[in-house]
Amino acid sequence: MGKALVLLSGGLDSSTCAAMAVKAHGAENVHALTIFYGQKHQTEIEAAKNIAEALGLASHSVVSLPLEPFKGAGSTLIDPDKPNPELTYQQIAESTGPSPTYVPFRNANLLSLATAIALRDGCEEVYYGPHAEDARNFAYPDCTPEFNGAMANAIFVGTYFKVKLITPLQWMMKADVAWTALELGVPIELTHSCYNGKRPACGKCPTCVERIEAFKAIGVKDPLPYEIQIDWGDCR
Amino acid sequence: MGKALVLLSGGLDSSTCAAMAVKAHGAENVHALTIFYGQKHQTEIEAAKNIAEALGLASHSVVSLPLEPFKGAGSTLIDPDKPNPELTYQQIAESTGPSPTYVPFRNANLLSLATAIALRDGCEEVYYGPHAEDARNFAYPDCTPEFNGAMANAIFVGTYFKVKLITPLQWMMKADVAWTALELGVPIELTHSCYNGKRPACGKCPTCVERIEAFKAIGVKDPLPYEIQIDWGDCR
Repeated sequence: MGKALVLLSGGLDSSTCAAMAVKAHGAENVHALTIFYGQKHQTEIEAAKNIAEALGLASHSVVSLPLEPFKGAGSTLIDPDKPNPELTYQQIAESTGPSPTYVPFRNANLLSLATAIALRDGCEEVYYGPHAEDARNFAYPDCTPEFNGAMANAIFVGTYFKVKLITPLQWMMKADVAWTALELGVPIELTHSCYNGKRPACGKCPTCVERIEAFKAIGVKDPLPYEIQIDWGDCR
Repeated sequence: MGKALVLLSGGLDSSTCAAMAVKAHGAENVHALTIFYGQKHQTEIEAAKNIAEALGLASHSVVSLPLEPFKGAGSTLIDPDKPNPELTYQQIAESTGPSPTYVPFRNANLLSLATAIALRDGCEEVYYGPHAEDARNFAYPDCTPEFNGAMANAIFVGTYFKVKLITPLQWMMKADVAWTALELGVPIELTHSCYNGKRPACGKCPTCVERIEAFKAIGVKDPLPYEIQIDWGDCR
């Protein structure tokens, strides 16, 4: 069984991706990589570490990209003077122009660095977790199947056919991801999604709202604590 | 006329690329970017600065990638304990397995970072100078048209269709590049190619040998000084 590298932010999606890599490769063959690019919510690095430990992964490393290219572009994920929008993913998808949370060409930078590390460490696959709700209506273009496919080609060709890109969530909506996470025993209570880096989570930023809706859709209470009251209805 | 960003290492290829960008966009719209990834021959950063000045480019900046991913892979371009091979590009192309000078997935990392900066700075095109002799027989897979095409797709899609990748040398052999450099008035004497970072150049490493052969093929003496005697025959 070959080795795999998983891009792990500590969120629900990448944690689910990590659990899928474990299922395919065995935990002892899965290495996690967290990349810092200036994101405000550094709580995600702590969450990634906890998830890697809980899943029994072979290793977890943190590498920093140069920050200047990303800092200057005004993404609300990075700029300390810009609050994250209180919009749903649906609203972001329906609005025109780039999402205020889009970080310029971030995902290609994450994937390129991950691939260099995969080659260095002898990993045959890179797992990476964008899903269909990220991609919907081109809200995050670097999460689309078109982008993923192009990067998969670049990665396979550019590494002498040694590394494959695996995007197991790309046709799933967030509710499918939440369901898969439950099925695979992802330690959901340890994940971190909130764009504002809050713990308990804010419950209002795009990713909190999306996550809450996903759990409601599958009839399950999100085990993560929120700082606002969530009406879970008859969720179990 | 829109702005362009050129990946400039200070070598003959990227300098020619820069001159092509100047022809298309005007020097006042062309920004140069040099990326440090741990290469031994830091003389190339100085060369890039000189070329950018000589061509009158709008700006020149230097950004460093994280070095660990590239350092650990044993490329002779980076590892201080490994001398660069005294092979021709032809010999590298004819040998099996990765070239000893291959830096893991380097070019995707360069392009991804350049694209983030292009987006930040409002540049519509990224110029990048791999050529057909780099790509021949898959010696450097991240210089092939297949790789370039995949990255061009990822870049265009992943930036909301704002940035295009331009690879004007990809079907040229090195002699075509040298000819184009002459035609466009590239200050060839300021470029730096030697893998060993020598000035005068070593004349023996793959890129020195390739460069000398290219100038011989077009019947012109390379204006660059070499530390060994070069038989220029009846070159002018």
